[in-house]
Amino acid sequence: MKRLAFTVMLLSAVAFSSTAPAKAQQTATSATSSKVESSLFTVKVISPEIREITYANGPFNFIEPDTLVQLNDIVQRLAQESDVKVVVFDSGTAGFFYNHFDMGQFPAFVGQVGKSNKPLWVELISNVERAPFITIASIRGRTQGGGDELTLALDLRYASREKAIFNQPEVGIGLFPGGGGPDHLAKLTGRDRAIEAFLSADDYDAATAERYGWVTRAVPDAELDSVVMKMATRLATFDKQALIATKQHINSTTLPTESERLVSYNNFVQSLSWSGLQQRMGVFGKLMQDVGVEKVETQMGHYVGVGNENLQKSKK
Amino acid sequence: MKRLAFTVMLLSAVAFSSTAPAKAQQTATSATSSKVESSLFTVKVISPEIREITYANGPFNFIEPDTLVQLNDIVQRLAQESDVKVVVFDSGTAGFFYNHFDMGQFPAFVGQVGKSNKPLWVELISNVERAPFITIASIRGRTQGGGDELTLALDLRYASREKAIFNQPEVGIGLFPGGGGPDHLAKLTGRDRAIEAFLSADDYDAATAERYGWVTRAVPDAELDSVVMKMATRLATFDKQALIATKQHINSTTLPTESERLVSYNNFVQSLSWSGLQQRMGVFGKLMQDVGVEKVETQMGHYVGVGNENLQKSKK
Amino acid sequence: MKRLAFTVMLLSAVAFSSTAPAKAQQTATSATSSKVESSLFTVKVISPEIREITYANGPFNFIEPDTLVQLNDIVQRLAQESDVKVVVFDSGTAGFFYNHFDMGQFPAFVGQVGKSNKPLWVELISNVERAPFITIASIRGRTQGGGDELTLALDLRYASREKAIFNQPEVGIGLFPGGGGPDHLAKLTGRDRAIEAFLSADDYDAATAERYGWVTRAVPDAELDSVVMKMATRLATFDKQALIATKQHINSTTLPTESERLVSYNNFVQSLSWSGLQQRMGVFGKLMQDVGVEKVETQMGHYVGVGNENLQKSKK
Repeated sequence: MKRLAFTVMLLSAVAFSSTAPAKAQQTATSATSSKVESSLFTVKVISPEIREITYANGPFNFIEPDTLVQLNDIVQRLAQESDVKVVVFDSGTAGFFYNHFDMGQFPAFVGQVGKSNKPLWVELISNVERAPFITIASIRGRTQGGGDELTLALDLRYASREKAIFNQPEVGIGLFPGGGGPDHLAKLTGRDRAIEAFLSADDYDAATAERYGWVTRAVPDAELDSVVMKMATRLATFDKQALIATKQHINSTTLPTESERLVSYNNFVQSLSWSGLQQRMGVFGKLMQDVGVEKVETQMGHYVGVGNENLQKSKK
Repeated sequence: MKRLAFTVMLLSAVAFSSTAPAKAQQTATSATSSKVESSLFTVKVISPEIREITYANGPFNFIEPDTLVQLNDIVQRLAQESDVKVVVFDSGTAGFFYNHFDMGQFPAFVGQVGKSNKPLWVELISNVERAPFITIASIRGRTQGGGDELTLALDLRYASREKAIFNQPEVGIGLFPGGGGPDHLAKLTGRDRAIEAFLSADDYDAATAERYGWVTRAVPDAELDSVVMKMATRLATFDKQALIATKQHINSTTLPTESERLVSYNNFVQSLSWSGLQQRMGVFGKLMQDVGVEKVETQMGHYVGVGNENLQKSKK
Repeated sequence: MKRLAFTVMLLSAVAFSSTAPAKAQQTATSATSSKVESSLFTVKVISPEIREITYANGPFNFIEPDTLVQLNDIVQRLAQESDVKVVVFDSGTAGFFYNHFDMGQFPAFVGQVGKSNKPLWVELISNVERAPFITIASIRGRTQGGGDELTLALDLRYASREKAIFNQPEVGIGLFPGGGGPDHLAKLTGRDRAIEAFLSADDYDAATAERYGWVTRAVPDAELDSVVMKMATRLATFDKQALIATKQHINSTTLPTESERLVSYNNFVQSLSWSGLQQRMGVFGKLMQDVGVEKVETQMGHYVGVGNENLQKSKK
């Protein structure tokens, strides 16, 4: 506990985030409320059966504690709308789909508890997976860390061949990737490719992601919107009972269980006290200051490497 | 029960089938007999170790109640022939490999019970999977619905790159796809691609099927016969004990269990009472009359979309 | 037991191995000792965090009883070195990565018991899988039988696109492939492709292996060394705790269990008494004498076919 507190102070001290700390505290206290305004999301009615959830938290589309609260609220509300059959997830921030957790706000994330007294993140992923509608990711831009782990919980993933990039940076900064991503990805790509993706913390383009099974399909960027909307429109004419029963049946034989994801999440929380993370916080904080957040976020694979090389040199 | 009866009447009323109702009734009563003549199948002796089972139920190669009875009988008889090591499954009907269940005969299918008092379909798939010979699908033409679910139970699947097309139309007509197909396919393609295939009810060419893992290999049509026969001939020279023990070992770690398939099948039977199916029966019956069965069967993905669009328009 | 003894005599009689029988006996008696000299392996210190284990047992890189003893010893010693994060496995024998078990020494293999009274092979694979470092295969040359099953237990597999070939010949000579390979491969490639690979006993080039998921990536031969070393060097700068916890987590959800591999291994031992093997020993022994070991080992797929054809002709 003492070590966690220390890490928390350390994390608050480094400039990993452009958001004000005050905002994070607000969120931590309001996490259990269901009346949070969706300041980060726009929910658009495409048709009676189709919704589009656009995430816009520019300039980097980090996932913040507010993201979890608002998205969980939206997903639960849409689950009540009996007409809704398909929900498209896209991004309103150029260059990014869902990005990683805002690393300056780990303490706030750890404090977030859902309705069933489980971590809010675990509850959010369960609600997304169990939602009585088909979830489709329209992936344009970088999809990193927790943002990719959320994406892996969606039913279908269509990625822009030119503009989608995937990266799981956790291991590279000394953290356990506990958002359920390894559990999801290993079932899609097989053991070795999941190990490669999560251990290398490197960039994967859409073609490689498609070959690995990380996304359902990679499509030319110019066709992404029409591919997604064509699928959504087609499914929207089908019988909802047939769609949902079949989705849930396939999910029941393929998804990691909530308990498995809970174990993973607890490993992540534990890893916030690891000394390897503490060593890397300073290094990456300095790197961010030297080259700027934008460069690091848009060349994540490269800079995870640079940060660790710098650390290794400093030890010698 | 009342609703099922209603559906049954409804199903009998629409022209989904070109086979005479009398034939279906015959089948229902003779389903437990093992002396049914194989009018739909030809079993050819290629060599002492190789058999070729050709399914010819033109013009569309629908699966009928008779299909289950006869194929189950053939598989069980071949299992008794100690020399037989390899059984090739092909089609004698141009344009089609195994097609979907004859939708005008659902009542007869539901009445079919196997030796162990389980649904005959479930028993047939178990017998195919457990057969003491290697089963190879030589896929040329459309492979749809239950026909594809049977194909997924075979050991090896070689598909004509130009002429094999896969489609699981069930969800598109309001049914639960309960023939074991989702259970098999999700283990091969991963969660998202199985959801896409079964929910979209769309056409998949052989190249996509190969990329997804739906077939073992897609090969040029001109080479399909030789690829299949070369594999069959090679395996036929190997030790049967080694072949079967290894096949069964791999199956034991990868196949859905019979109980899982039984749950799926019961879901399918339940879904015959769904209101979404009843709504779609009329629409698709009319579509069949308007454009003809041949067009619908050879452009299944397209017409599943058209039927559902028509239904949606009619509601507004 | 009598039949096993008979097989053992038969196996000793045929010229499947170029190693002296005396060597095999030495190994059998020293199998439990941990002080065996690593005459078959070179362990090179690439950096404080990286080791390279080179296997050189020319001219064919067969796995011998000594291989198991020495490699198990090396893996356990490296596990004690807290700095070591990555271990690269390569070959010092041109044309071969890890090859199949030396078939003249099956009796010695069967006698090898590990520390926990389990078969030494099963223990070795467990130690490799559980090792507190990341294992990377740099695959150049033929990778066959038990050698491929060892390779499948490593974390990452990079294969030379031009020079890596994979073959599991066991079924083709009448044996059960019980080294854990089917258990590993079926989880990577899916049921049908694992059945094809293990039953056909045919050659698979690196491109096909990559497409099936048999290797992590196939890369141009000219880039293989740099791809492997770049990954090793990158991981070596990362936090060891994060690397190992994540690897072990993914392994815990994807690897076959040791008990499953033990069942497989016992099936293999049983299969040494199969009559199909005994029939094939003579045939393949003669083939080896006629065309030479080198041709058989470098065209394994072809000659497994030829041997079985010869056997079939001789029966008629």
